Amino acid sequence: MSEKEKTNFSSKELGVNKVEPDKISEWYNKIIKEAEVVDQGPTKGTIVFRPYGYALWKGVQKNLGSKIEENGVKDVYFPAIIPERLLVKEKDHIEGFAPEFLRVQGRSGEIGVLRPTSEAVMYPLFKKWINSYRDLPLKVNQWCNTFRDELRTYALIRTSEFLWQEGHCVYSSAEENERAVMKYLNMYRDFFDNKLAISPIFGKKSEKEKFAGALYTTTGEALLPGGKALQVCTSHNLGTNFAEAFNIQFLGKDSKQHYPYQTSWGLSWRVIAAMIMIHGDEKGLVFPPEMAPIQVVIIPIRGSSDELVMKTARSIKEKLSGLRVKLDESNSRPGALYNYYEIRGIPLRIEIGARDIGKNQLTVANRLTGKKETLPLNDKLNNNINSSLDSIQRSLLEKSEDSVKENIRDVKTWKEFKDTLNEKGGFLRTYHCGDRDCEQKIQDETKATLRCIPFGYEKSKGKCVKCGKPSGYGQKVLFAKAY
Amino acid sequence: MSEKEKTNFSSKELGVNKVEPDKISEWYNKIIKEAEVVDQGPTKGTIVFRPYGYALWKGVQKNLGSKIEENGVKDVYFPAIIPERLLVKEKDHIEGFAPEFLRVQGRSGEIGVLRPTSEAVMYPLFKKWINSYRDLPLKVNQWCNTFRDELRTYALIRTSEFLWQEGHCVYSSAEENERAVMKYLNMYRDFFDNKLAISPIFGKKSEKEKFAGALYTTTGEALLPGGKALQVCTSHNLGTNFAEAFNIQFLGKDSKQHYPYQTSWGLSWRVIAAMIMIHGDEKGLVFPPEMAPIQVVIIPIRGSSDELVMKTARSIKEKLSGLRVKLDESNSRPGALYNYYEIRGIPLRIEIGARDIGKNQLTVANRLTGKKETLPLNDKLNNNINSSLDSIQRSLLEKSEDSVKENIRDVKTWKEFKDTLNEKGGFLRTYHCGDRDCEQKIQDETKATLRCIPFGYEKSKGKCVKCGKPSGYGQKVLFAKAY
Repeated sequence: MSEKEKTNFSSKELGVNKVEPDKISEWYNKIIKEAEVVDQGPTKGTIVFRPYGYALWKGVQKNLGSKIEENGVKDVYFPAIIPERLLVKEKDHIEGFAPEFLRVQGRSGEIGVLRPTSEAVMYPLFKKWINSYRDLPLKVNQWCNTFRDELRTYALIRTSEFLWQEGHCVYSSAEENERAVMKYLNMYRDFFDNKLAISPIFGKKSEKEKFAGALYTTTGEALLPGGKALQVCTSHNLGTNFAEAFNIQFLGKDSKQHYPYQTSWGLSWRVIAAMIMIHGDEKGLVFPPEMAPIQVVIIPIRGSSDELVMKTARSIKEKLSGLRVKLDESNSRPGALYNYYEIRGIPLRIEIGARDIGKNQLTVANRLTGKKETLPLNDKLNNNINSSLDSIQRSLLEKSEDSVKENIRDVKTWKEFKDTLNEKGGFLRTYHCGDRDCEQKIQDETKATLRCIPFGYEKSKGKCVKCGKPSGYGQKVLFAKAY
Repeated sequence: MSEKEKTNFSSKELGVNKVEPDKISEWYNKIIKEAEVVDQGPTKGTIVFRPYGYALWKGVQKNLGSKIEENGVKDVYFPAIIPERLLVKEKDHIEGFAPEFLRVQGRSGEIGVLRPTSEAVMYPLFKKWINSYRDLPLKVNQWCNTFRDELRTYALIRTSEFLWQEGHCVYSSAEENERAVMKYLNMYRDFFDNKLAISPIFGKKSEKEKFAGALYTTTGEALLPGGKALQVCTSHNLGTNFAEAFNIQFLGKDSKQHYPYQTSWGLSWRVIAAMIMIHGDEKGLVFPPEMAPIQVVIIPIRGSSDELVMKTARSIKEKLSGLRVKLDESNSRPGALYNYYEIRGIPLRIEIGARDIGKNQLTVANRLTGKKETLPLNDKLNNNINSSLDSIQRSLLEKSEDSVKENIRDVKTWKEFKDTLNEKGGFLRTYHCGDRDCEQKIQDETKATLRCIPFGYEKSKGKCVKCGKPSGYGQKVLFAKAY
């Protein structure tokens, strides 16, 4: 390991309050490479997930995967190449995804499309597996690569290939299906709260922004530094749209044939981008301890009493056996190592040298606060370290919640909308008429889109911020520019 | 769950000694669908991995994955679409894989190929990451989907898309690289021995059969019922072939530039096919306990004392908490359930009814032996069940080893070669001259290929079974028909 060049950003530039998207992009693209999270792939718009980045994705798979399993959803694997004849079955679906198709041709001559999402390849099999109400609910999930031929790419956020999970459930009643849509959205919400320590806003998508082929789409919208929103998860109510298109029917308890109700829900590696942007600072990454591949790094400060220092460092590692701890035995200059692990966002750094050992103590540096403290080298070490990690986890979530709250701005007039968007960014809370063309005009003029109709907002009436017609949602909605 | 149709094969038809490949194929294709391991995908030659099948793959990932990690190899993810300009860099590599390319075209116009293996997409990045001897060894692994446009397909064995892991390591010396080739091959060997309970024969591939672009290839060759061989893993010594093609160089301790040495090694989901075919019997699947997604199924025999039976069944499940146990609470007819779990290969079935409870005992049915025994319902239950599982695991490995040994047949003349191949199949042990054209002639005439030059065979001399020239390997080699 060689000493890395220090990143050139001051902390002020990175606050979500400061609308400097260019700086954020520059910081982000620099830091994910310096911290060895990703590298650029050999084709435009593709990325390589390096070991440190992939370790984060494994953390997502482990934590979210166990919740998916607890809900009785089973992992499966379906082919990545979907025959075009299947994709055209649901009319809205094909229209929504066709521009992003990557087409494949092999020796058989049949044209296939690399899955942009797997409804069209899964549901013909669902038709085969579902015969009666006894076969329902059917609940499967897939961790896989997915392909969308994006024109404008952005590392981990919009790439021609990405990793994600997609859940697909089938129920016999509309009510059960509706409950499932919210159950999986809430599963994501818990994951963001408890693990990633980011706090998206949850709500419904507008008709214009919903998933192609869905009855409606629910979403989590994170707010990133620079004031732009990022959709970090979705849970769709497909109703019977796909069941009708793929002719999936089941024999009900009433001995009649029925179309079942379906939901699909997904979350991709872009949650890692959100986590990196929301928590990062001028020194580099800052990881919530729950997601950090390494939670504590131990740096032995060597000198004349090398052996004693290493022995003590190893015994500290043993004491912290329940945690993800790395003991750096590289013998590099401590200053270089501090920098190396700070860029990589390790929550706590333990420094241990001969002088500390003499005093029966060690020094702990906190990546979030930047402060150092000395802790006694005794039986309470494990407790003390755990409580520091808990505190970092909590603080990151609070910071994230606060910054979302601070960046929701009420706007009433069209001028206010445009000025606030340009000057401050963030979420603009206002009324909208619900008309698709009006929504499109807002997007064409400002690049802002209707991110969601949030859950939990009180009912209220007002005039559309753009056209002045009565509001169409019975509540305020959120607009923002998006990644 | 409905009672499944009983499979129509007698045990005699399934022994590896009986050369009835058609029967085996019929049995295999029927049983993997009945046991809900896989289903046919919507395009020819693709398969869908159902929950029970995917659980097996997760077992492979967990068990082999932990060994890969222990060797210091880190998981990564590289793009699935490889620009054709990179694939042409290593001349032998492109020639070997080109016929199986699946080509992709998107909006950018650049032609990409879906990875048939990832050397060509990984090594340009390796070039970037490797500068000096301090960057070596570089050791990465990828669990991913891979694509080869096969003409002749076979479920889980030869499909246009398959799941696998591919390890790629780079070393500064030829010796270290050579040791690594064998280290990873031996890692696979342990996995086959200890987990899958199958015993492939390990050796080197001939020049004709080696990996396109490698210096040499080492392989594990399993023998399946019907007498055909299946390559179940490979570990390649790439020498400096790819380093030269991709211009990967490092600054040595001698301050000079050197090409590093490389190895790549892979294992795919076809190991599941091998495990299924080798252990299966006329009733269906038989899983080695180490790999069985469910190791013990508990079937409550209900009657007038429902509540007591269910309570006892639950307490048995608790007693076996270290194992993967399923308690079937479906209340289906016991006979139907026995059949259901037998088809699925669950190693042990516990039956518990009111009469057993009265005698403070339970009945255990062993899937491998087909025998039932009664066990006391006491503190030793966990030990007793574990020792039954161990015994099944051991027996399956021994059976597999024996059947490989029994099916290696020495042949001296060309007539003997052909007759033995047609009448008995299995591995034919004989001499070969080492000439590529002669090897091709054997394949053209008999469909048999040189599976490997086994490790550990004693040095000996003889005449080529086909052309009569002196043997080229200094030992006997193995031929077989292959899947």
